[in-house]
Amino acid sequence: MNTDLFVPAFADPAGSPIRELFPYLSKPGIISFAGGYPSPSLFDADGLQASTTRVMSQGAGILQYGATEGVPALKEELLKLSASRGVLGAPERLLVSTGSQQAFDLLVRIFVQPGDTVLLEVPAYPAAIQALRLAGASIVEIPMDADGLQTEALGAILRSLTVGTKPKLLYTVPTFSNPRGTLMPGARRAELVALANRFGFFIIEDDPYGELAFTDVRPEPLFVYGARLGDENPVIYLSSLSKTVAPALRVGWMIGPPDVVRRCAVAKQTVDLCTSPIAQLIAADYLRSGRYPSTVYAACDEYRRRADAMAESLSTSLGDAIAFRKPAGGMFLWVDSTVAIDPKAVFQAAVDEGVLFVPGSAFHPSVPKQQSMRLSFAAPTVAQIREGVARLARAFHNQTITE
Amino acid sequence: MNTDLFVPAFADPAGSPIRELFPYLSKPGIISFAGGYPSPSLFDADGLQASTTRVMSQGAGILQYGATEGVPALKEELLKLSASRGVLGAPERLLVSTGSQQAFDLLVRIFVQPGDTVLLEVPAYPAAIQALRLAGASIVEIPMDADGLQTEALGAILRSLTVGTKPKLLYTVPTFSNPRGTLMPGARRAELVALANRFGFFIIEDDPYGELAFTDVRPEPLFVYGARLGDENPVIYLSSLSKTVAPALRVGWMIGPPDVVRRCAVAKQTVDLCTSPIAQLIAADYLRSGRYPSTVYAACDEYRRRADAMAESLSTSLGDAIAFRKPAGGMFLWVDSTVAIDPKAVFQAAVDEGVLFVPGSAFHPSVPKQQSMRLSFAAPTVAQIREGVARLARAFHNQTITE
Repeated sequence: MNTDLFVPAFADPAGSPIRELFPYLSKPGIISFAGGYPSPSLFDADGLQASTTRVMSQGAGILQYGATEGVPALKEELLKLSASRGVLGAPERLLVSTGSQQAFDLLVRIFVQPGDTVLLEVPAYPAAIQALRLAGASIVEIPMDADGLQTEALGAILRSLTVGTKPKLLYTVPTFSNPRGTLMPGARRAELVALANRFGFFIIEDDPYGELAFTDVRPEPLFVYGARLGDENPVIYLSSLSKTVAPALRVGWMIGPPDVVRRCAVAKQTVDLCTSPIAQLIAADYLRSGRYPSTVYAACDEYRRRADAMAESLSTSLGDAIAFRKPAGGMFLWVDSTVAIDPKAVFQAAVDEGVLFVPGSAFHPSVPKQQSMRLSFAAPTVAQIREGVARLARAFHNQTITE
Repeated sequence: MNTDLFVPAFADPAGSPIRELFPYLSKPGIISFAGGYPSPSLFDADGLQASTTRVMSQGAGILQYGATEGVPALKEELLKLSASRGVLGAPERLLVSTGSQQAFDLLVRIFVQPGDTVLLEVPAYPAAIQALRLAGASIVEIPMDADGLQTEALGAILRSLTVGTKPKLLYTVPTFSNPRGTLMPGARRAELVALANRFGFFIIEDDPYGELAFTDVRPEPLFVYGARLGDENPVIYLSSLSKTVAPALRVGWMIGPPDVVRRCAVAKQTVDLCTSPIAQLIAADYLRSGRYPSTVYAACDEYRRRADAMAESLSTSLGDAIAFRKPAGGMFLWVDSTVAIDPKAVFQAAVDEGVLFVPGSAFHPSVPKQQSMRLSFAAPTVAQIREGVARLARAFHNQTITE
């Protein structure tokens, strides 16, 4: 097997443990819990086809370069969509990005000089770690528990940082996090925003999964807490259509202070000039078509069934050997082993059994947490989930027994 | 007027002289020679609509994330297209990018640390200057003449650089350059490649305009000269469908050594994960449809007529007050004033007359060349070009007379 998979993530920007998983995906009959991919069966292909037909019948005018900030028709729809979540913006506060990944990368570009301190919830989204590493950031890890980023620990860390290491940014996925699947409660949200305001850093709230909720319990976005501070709102809100409409559009967006948005737009000029206006117009038409709410509703319903199936299968097959909390939304379930395992051996045994997951080490910028794994329930069917968990259990039991 | 327009370009990454021109574009009746926009009248809207319909009828599978390196079907078509120019690649040597702008930016990311020396032909494409500035590059300017980058001057500069300032990259648009419209002769191409090989730096050959040739005289790309050195080829080739098919696709590509391409792909994961697979599939279908050659042929024909009209009008209206060489392809004509002018006053007078251009200062990273301007003949019609040049001549004459 490829041992690079288990080196601490991204020590070398030329290597990525998630990329190292790709070859396994082509193994015949493999069931993958590894990817962060939404289920193609939930994409509204008919609706998008209709939107595309309407867009492309508009003639040559739509084929030109667009404004770097985004096509006005899409900005209008994204402001409405954001407002439905309580996130109130304005055209000069919104930037369309090539996926929300780009929005994060632009923020890193304009804020982070080599050596600058950035606060990162850990375990963290690997591409966030990678972007920060490429920028030469000094990453300070903020631990998470089953309720997400631990604000108490953050407070202690902030008080211990010296003047020269004052942080500029904090990155978090407060709602159905990647990879932990956690949902940060309201009290922590209020505390986090207060800390940002007191210590003078921006919070980047990455919210691609917020609408994929399995229950009615859905705290307001951090941005809304921040907005109560008026012009002092320390939250920059990122979201995406990748998890709800289609990743292939590559449409995300940022809502933040006008000067931050303007600086990101200038940086975006050097990055890709503009996000594909064709993709933007398809997205705008789709949002306007009124099909979005039922598409998201169907996704929530199906992902809830899949999460339930995975949680049930894990409890049945692995019982006390693991610990996890069933997520209340999103695409991910985080599993900690309660018994001593050799993670490399478990991973290899799982591949041999025909199931794939992402080892916990991929989500840690420094010391990997070896005893955990991220399972995505979004792409496989319920039947595949049951079979995949059975395979995983066999791999797990064989390894823990032989240790 | 906005005086920011004339400060040396990009001293502050938050300000860009090209962006400063945007408000003028909405002035009623204005004729713009300013943008680097292809003419929408030359886009094959019908062909692209047909391609889009075929792509979108393929169902939900195409709506997922794609490989960071690019959709295989498009990579295959781009390899064929590149081969028709003599640029021979292979799948592992090609990266699809979100416009060729992104390909350049990725190269800057993986190669340039703050303080690193980068060689830049000047006058230069503004977004290249901006990307290098954001990366903290130490820019060494290589002068151009009517035959493009001056290789003799480059040789002298290279011999004068100390070990600590050894350059990593050189950026050039050898074929129908932006902004000068120059075409580098074969002898210089061979010399440039030899210098890169001898002094150990990569040449980034940006070739978005190469197919827009007005005559049969078309030297081989620098990449072909480099390929004669085998594995030592110092040229990384960039191109784009923006100037020939449609900017709104945001499809460009890079062909280079496999390790460079791989490192750029890893960086691209943090930048936008992948270029829109929908746009990639539309581009692939369009290239496969066989309509591309006639689209490019029509563009060459029309741009030749427009360049002729501009050159003729300039000679008639401004005569010896200016110097220029009619370009043999591309989208730009570079004009030097032979008489003393106040460029700010000429620009303002031109705006008042109802014509827009980009002042030469925008293309200089340090000392602006005040006595020049870039005129694009691509987007306006022949009639608009004649009227626009007449307005420009009035502005020019009034200003030089009143000085």
